Formats: sequence, C-alpha cells, structure tokens
Amino acid sequence: MQRRVTILDSTLRDGAQGEGISFSVEDKLGIVRALDELGVTYLEAGNPASNPKELEFFDRAAGLHLKNASLVAFGSTCRKDRSPGEDANCLALLQANTPVVSIFGKCWDLHVREILRTTPEENLRMVEETCRFFREHGKRVIFDAEHFFDGYQANPDFAMETLRAAARGGAQTLALCDTNGGCMPGDILTITTRVCAEFPRTEIGIHAHDDCGMAVANSVCAVQGGASHVQGTFLGFGERTGNANLSAVIPTLQLKCGLSCIPAKNMHALTATAMRIAEIANITLHKNMPFVGRSAFAHKAGMHADGVLKLERSFEHIDPVLVGNHRRFLMSEMTGKSAVLRRVQKIYPEITRDSPILTSIVDELKEKEHEGYQYEGADSSFELIIRKRIEGVEPFFDLISYKVLDELPYDNNHSATATIKIRVGGKVKIAASDGDGPVNALDKALREALAEFYPCLNEVRLVDYKVRVMEPKDATAARVRVLISSADGSDIWTTVGVSQDIIEASWIALVDSIEHKLCGQPSPQCSSTI
Amino acid sequence: MQRRVTILDSTLRDGAQGEGISFSVEDKLGIVRALDELGVTYLEAGNPASNPKELEFFDRAAGLHLKNASLVAFGSTCRKDRSPGEDANCLALLQANTPVVSIFGKCWDLHVREILRTTPEENLRMVEETCRFFREHGKRVIFDAEHFFDGYQANPDFAMETLRAAARGGAQTLALCDTNGGCMPGDILTITTRVCAEFPRTEIGIHAHDDCGMAVANSVCAVQGGASHVQGTFLGFGERTGNANLSAVIPTLQLKCGLSCIPAKNMHALTATAMRIAEIANITLHKNMPFVGRSAFAHKAGMHADGVLKLERSFEHIDPVLVGNHRRFLMSEMTGKSAVLRRVQKIYPEITRDSPILTSIVDELKEKEHEGYQYEGADSSFELIIRKRIEGVEPFFDLISYKVLDELPYDNNHSATATIKIRVGGKVKIAASDGDGPVNALDKALREALAEFYPCLNEVRLVDYKVRVMEPKDATAARVRVLISSADGSDIWTTVGVSQDIIEASWIALVDSIEHKLCGQPSPQCSSTI
Repeated sequence: MQRRVTILDSTLRDGAQGEGISFSVEDKLGIVRALDELGVTYLEAGNPASNPKELEFFDRAAGLHLKNASLVAFGSTCRKDRSPGEDANCLALLQANTPVVSIFGKCWDLHVREILRTTPEENLRMVEETCRFFREHGKRVIFDAEHFFDGYQANPDFAMETLRAAARGGAQTLALCDTNGGCMPGDILTITTRVCAEFPRTEIGIHAHDDCGMAVANSVCAVQGGASHVQGTFLGFGERTGNANLSAVIPTLQLKCGLSCIPAKNMHALTATAMRIAEIANITLHKNMPFVGRSAFAHKAGMHADGVLKLERSFEHIDPVLVGNHRRFLMSEMTGKSAVLRRVQKIYPEITRDSPILTSIVDELKEKEHEGYQYEGADSSFELIIRKRIEGVEPFFDLISYKVLDELPYDNNHSATATIKIRVGGKVKIAASDGDGPVNALDKALREALAEFYPCLNEVRLVDYKVRVMEPKDATAARVRVLISSADGSDIWTTVGVSQDIIEASWIALVDSIEHKLCGQPSPQCSSTI
Repeated sequence: MQRRVTILDSTLRDGAQGEGISFSVEDKLGIVRALDELGVTYLEAGNPASNPKELEFFDRAAGLHLKNASLVAFGSTCRKDRSPGEDANCLALLQANTPVVSIFGKCWDLHVREILRTTPEENLRMVEETCRFFREHGKRVIFDAEHFFDGYQANPDFAMETLRAAARGGAQTLALCDTNGGCMPGDILTITTRVCAEFPRTEIGIHAHDDCGMAVANSVCAVQGGASHVQGTFLGFGERTGNANLSAVIPTLQLKCGLSCIPAKNMHALTATAMRIAEIANITLHKNMPFVGRSAFAHKAGMHADGVLKLERSFEHIDPVLVGNHRRFLMSEMTGKSAVLRRVQKIYPEITRDSPILTSIVDELKEKEHEGYQYEGADSSFELIIRKRIEGVEPFFDLISYKVLDELPYDNNHSATATIKIRVGGKVKIAASDGDGPVNALDKALREALAEFYPCLNEVRLVDYKVRVMEPKDATAARVRVLISSADGSDIWTTVGVSQDIIEASWIALVDSIEHKLCGQPSPQCSSTI
C-alpha cells in the first residue's frame, strides 16, 4: 500500500494573509467546494477570533456536504495566566463548530520571552492545557509548532519540550512550522527526522514559508524525513512571499515520490482547480506556476519544440495530461518554422515547410510583435492572420467611423455613449449605445449594428477583458495591449489589439473576436440575410 | 577565506526563452550593465547562431567596459559527421568574440538515439572536439551537460563518459543541467557529490529548472554537494516554468550559507537590480518574490505586525536592509489597529489608539476595500484619507464636468479630445486638449486648466499607469482599478481610483495624485495666485 500523506490547505487562513488577497464569505465557500472535490484532507478556513465575518462563514460552511475534506478552525493557545475555558479566543474556536482545530503555540524561547513576555513553564502549560481542552470537547487537534525550526536551532531542548507538552495534551498531529521561511532543506530534513524518531506514533507535519523560494522543496524534504502531513496553500498565497504551494507539492509527492495525497483519479483536475481558485481570488494565475501554469508545458526555443515533436518526454518532466494541463508551442520570433508550420497545418494540412506563404506568415508575426502584439495568449488572432494570408478572407464588415463620448457627471447610470457607422456588403448601418465605460458602450453599439446581418453573434459573450500597459514610462500615453476572451457556449477564444488608445486597442481585439466567430460559421447561416 | 561560487546569469539567453519575454538589443545592453554592476561572474548573452539580432548585440556589447562580468556566447556542439571548424554554429560562436563560450551537449543516451539520431561514440567525439576547438581558440569553455541528471539516472556510465569527454577536450567548467526540471533535491545532492569526487580539480556547476518549484533549492543542494558554479536567471525567467531564480539563490548562498557570490558591498543593490531588470523586461516584478519582491517583508496579519513592532526578527528571516528591500505594514481589513495607528502617527504623532478618529479611519478603509480599492500599493491615496479625516483638507479644485471624445478614424495623430470645466476658489476655468487616447487627453486638459492656479504642477510627470480589471467575468462592463504613479524630481507617489468606467477610475487616481502634490507644498507657493 502507498504511504499516505495528509494535506492541509490554508488558502482561506494563511492565504488570506497574502498581500492583495481578500475573500468574501461566498468566495470562501467556493474555494472549500473546489478543494473538497479535489480531495484535500483538511481545509483550514479561518481564525474565528480575528474577525466576525469568520463565524458567519463557519455557520454557512456547516451546511455544505463535504465529500473528502474536514474543516479546520485555527487559533492560538489560551493566553498567559488564563485557562482555555475562560479564554475568549478558545471559546470562539469552539463556536466555529468544526471537527478539527489547529492550535498554534510558541516553540522558540526568544518569542516566549520577548513577544509573549512570560516564562517557559507558563508557555508549556498554555500549550498542554489548550490541546487537552479541545480534545475533551471531542475535537481532533493539530498543534502548529510556530517557529519550530528556528526555535530548535536556538534551543533544541525547549523546542522539543513544547512538542512533548502538546502530545501530553493529546494533540494528534504536530506540525513543525518554518514560520519565517528562512530554513535550508538540509536542516529541515535533519530536524524532522529527529522529531519523527521521538514521536513514532504521532502524525508529524510540515508548514513551510517561501521566503527563500524553497517552501516546496522544504516540504518534500520533511516528508523524506518522515513527515506525513503537509500544510500549505493551493496557489502559494500567504504572508510575505507566501506558503508552500500545494499545487506543486501534491503532484511532486504523488507522481514522483510514489505517495498518496489525493485520490489518484482526481489528479487530472489539478490545473482546473488552480484556475478556479485563481478566478475566485481574482488573480491571474501566474503563468510560470509549476504543473498548473499556462507556460508549464509551453515550448518556445526552436530546439526544444523540435525535440518535443520527435519525443515528448525529451523536454517534459511529466506528461501534462496527468495534471490536466496541456502542451503548447509558442508562436514567437524565437519559434522555429517547425512550430509555426505545425500550427498552420492544423487548418491547412497541405501547406509544407517550403511554401513561400509560410515564410510570409513568419515575417508578419515578427512585424506584429515589433508593434507590441503577442500571440502566445491570443491564438485566435494568430489564426486569423493565417487564414487571411492563405485564403484572403474578405472582411465581414468595414468600419466607416465610431465616436465614443465619456463624461462626468452623467445621467442614467451610464457614463459613456458610442455611435458607430459600418458597411456590410453594400449596406451602411448606423447604431448607438450607452454603456458602463467607453469600451462597453462601443462593444454594445457594434453588436447592435451587426445584429441584423449576423444573428449568430447573439450567442457570443465577452467573458474576460485584460489590459496591459506596455511602456509604463510614458504613463497615460503608453501603448496598451488588450486581450479579449469571448465564448459562445461551445467554445472560448482570445484575441488581441494594440494601440496607444485603449479604446482603439479594444476595438481591434473586438473585431478579431467577431471575425473568429464568423469564420467558424457555416456561411449560409451567417450570411443568408445579406 | 570564504569559499567562492561563480554565478552565470542567463537572463538574455535561457530567460529570453520564457513565454512573454522578448528583448531588443538596447534592452539586452541595459541588463548587461545592471548585472555587471551587481557583480555577477558570467553573463550568458545569447546564441549567435539562432538569430541575426544576436550578432549585432555581441558587436555592440564589445564596446561596454564591464567591471565584473565576462560575456558568454552559447551554442551547441558541432553537428554529427562534421568537425567544429566546418560547422556554421561553431563559427558563429567564434564570431561573437566573447572571452567565454558555453557549449551544450547530450548526456542522456535516449536523446543521443532519438533526437540526435547518432551513436554514443559519435556524441562523445562531438563533445570532446568542440570543447578542444574553443580552447584552442583561446576561450574559457563551460560545458553545459544537458539533461545530465535524467541521463545519469537512466545510464550513469554514459552520462559520466560525456563529462570525461568534455574534460579531455579542455572544458574548465562542467555544468550539470536538470534540463527538464523534474529532479528531487536529494538526487541532485547525491549525484553532484559523486561528480565532484571524480573531478576534484574541475569547476562543477548546476543549471536547474523550476518545473517542480524546486530550482532554488536544487541549486543550493548542488552547492552543498560541492558545486561551485551556479547558473540561473536573475528573475527566474526561462523556458516553461523558468530557471533557478538567482535573486533568491545569491542571497541564500551568501547571507545564509556563508559563501561568496557577488562583492559583499553590492548585496544591498539586489532589490534595485531586480526592479531595473523587471522594468527593462517590461514585466511587473512578482510581489511575492523572495528577498526582492514588494511583499517579501510585508506584514499583514495583526499578530505578525504586532510581533515585528516588538522585535523585528520575530517574523523576518533576515533584515530587509541587507538586500535593499524594506519592511511594510499593510493597510487592510486584516490589519490590526496597531499598524493603522503607526501609519497615522507618521503624520499626526498626537493621535492615540483610543482616538475615535482612528476607528473612523479603519471603518472608511474597510468600506473602500469593499468597493474594490486597495491601498497596499497606493499609500498616497491612503494618506489623503487620513489627512481629510483629521484635518478636513479643503479640495484644491472642484470638477464641474468633463467630456472625452474618442473616435476612429481621426485627424492629426490624436484619437481623443477632452474638455474640462473646473472651479478653483470662486473662479470657473474651461480647458481642452487632444491626446493619445482618452486618459492622456483628460490628463492634459486637467493640467491645462490648473496650470495658472498651481504652477508647481508643471514639475509633476506621470511615470506609471496600471490597469487591473477586477471582475473579469463581466468583461467590458467590469470594475476597473487604476494605479497612477507620479514623480516631481524629488519624490514618487502612487494613487488609486476604482470605477466601472476606466476613464472615471483614471480621473479619481489623477485627482488624488494632484492633491497629494498640493498637500505637500508650502501653501503660499501654490495658492498665491488664487
């Protein structure tokens, strides 16, 4: 049987301590559902004493029917000179009504003296009594040994005494924390090995921070030293530089070290779970994230792309399918002709390496990149270049002019108005719309103008809109790159526009988005009314 | 004496293979200057055979007077069935005219068979002869042992034979590459230790990729195994998930392991170098980057902030000053009153923890965050809230209205026109301007209108403009957060605005920026003309 490692995700607690991260109760429920489905063991969901919003969350979370995960409430030991039963924080923890609690306590004598300002003996009492209090209330108790590694290096006897106090109090898991994130993998391995030897029947855990960029490795080293419980956050959110990134720890332990963290059948959902959590947190998933990032299996150098085309594992450490990600060949000036050819042949299998049209596509690509375009994230705009070069696709409409007016103060909740004049076939059409901002107004006016000619556009919605200011030194006169993602129920596609004017850049991306949709339509359906 | 570790930065070569990264010749020269000043040993600056732009760069780079670094040109061994002297790639490498070359060759028998499609013996010949060719041309030769760790695990004899061939050919450095980024720290340590034992007098190096999120740890483990040369990229750019991030490797080795990588006096320039390279690469420095990220020493949880206020090292693994970074206390709903109080007391030392005004500031902060504001990166807007609450700062001007018109096609190179009507004191002023896009036009019109009242605004320039779409699911009607950074020669400040309308969001940030400048002015200078 595979050795089992339990996973505690703290996105909702330690993760929420990351700069720029904040969750509504709705957000938190969404993240609980996503990680429960993935099959994480514990979800540390907040500190009920820190914020009244937390108790509302625990109330509502009680109604979720979790399939895999147990909810964990997090809090400190009781305060000095007080028993857990008369400590407001401990009582708030009980109120959260979770099957598991995670209690943090001091293990570094420096902190006991300078931060708690109490005696070592009083600290041991606080740890032991608090663990016992929650055990007696029927909870499973995880003891978070705060600053354990720093404390061990400063005073190993004191640090070990704290663990013994927690164990006497009944803690079932002792999680060793590198709270300041400054420890080296070798030290983590050695110290964890020693702790595991002293507590052979207790679950030993690791809680690593990324201040030296080694939190994932430190977690893996602790497991190699005998730990069987790993704490982290799914996308690495957390105080300062963040916590151990579980979306890298889980596949590393499971696919490379032969351990079991989540049900094997769920591993392919890893990338989708990462995207879902990023969406809820309203951040763009960092494209270089191991395993789940958009670039994790993206090949840019010509030589790498050529290698992968010959033999996939030549430049891939695992098959991307195992974690629900996929292989990409990037279109850029560095891309060999091979990768461009491969992309072109997806649509036009008859084009060969020697076709002059291939060279002209590669040239256009380089020129556009020079203007600030990037097609790596806007494959549909790139596909339009190919189609136009090869088939000479006629434009579906011509713009005669648009005017967008934006004003403050404004009436009727709409700050912007757009008018647009286009020509379709021989017919000129004028339309207008108001909107929440200039791009929204222009988008609505364009759809209004095109509706009678191309009814299939009614099913298209814009689902994402991104803005990138490219030469920030020129500030408001800088060049802007806009990416628009559109969906029609069966497909999602992304297009790009570049201009100094954000409205014009949006316009270019919008037109590509519409042309992409119309290119894909059987012509009668769309052009029958012209 | 401290043990020395040489550092090879490959931002300009492997880094340029990262998705979304592309450098002009000017960019490359700027990065060379920045890393030379920091004191990196080698700068691997490109593959002269891959792209004609590379040779132009090497030509111009020859004119730089580098203080610390040597330039390195990168390329493969000669091809099969060919000698280096008749191989176009090898000749291009010579043409780059650098003191050092880095030659990569195959060490994994699988690659020799499937990718090169040649015999093991021919591969050894290619490696040995190519190294000798460059040594005979007076170069220092680094042999990049591609896929060394994977190759060693598959066939250790063959992998070691390749290193021996390179050493026979005269290579002075053998850099062991984890090309696919899939190796575990323990394996890196073991294998590097064995190689160091066989080549006691050769510099052994490590070249790690971050596909499991362990490239920094793998580099450090290799050094612990005896390696004394580390390759990576300063911000971790590179193929797929990137290369070992040198801005984490360097301070870890130097400040924590007691080794010497760069001159000690330059360590404080680490953060500024990271910002400079990010600016040249036109990326936003990831705020969670170890050591150099904006959040690396940012404390958000109340308990952490309280701890650091009592004793800095309680929640910091190093003093941020050592790497030129600084400590921050984040203003957020999670921030304890202590940190808000500390920020308020910077301006109004008389305010105490019990002042009702402090509670009202904390409340306003929470309300604004609910609307989508974030002050973590816009301290000047936060300071204005404090000033307005405490002093009731009178507005310096009132907006009566603005109208911005954006159109296509447009005349005279300007797509946008703005008119603005404001009131200063009792006086109404109307102004207009065209601009490159709507925000630029509005910015220019506002300055035009205010110029006669506040001449000091002439010294203010906008230096950065960022746009963040917040609820991407609503696409073009989404809420937008705009951050504007302004400078006046002696100060830089950042302000924030939020709205569904990007122009209105920019307007709000613009007004804060101007109010910040005017608040800081001795009143007569600015208001004398009113």
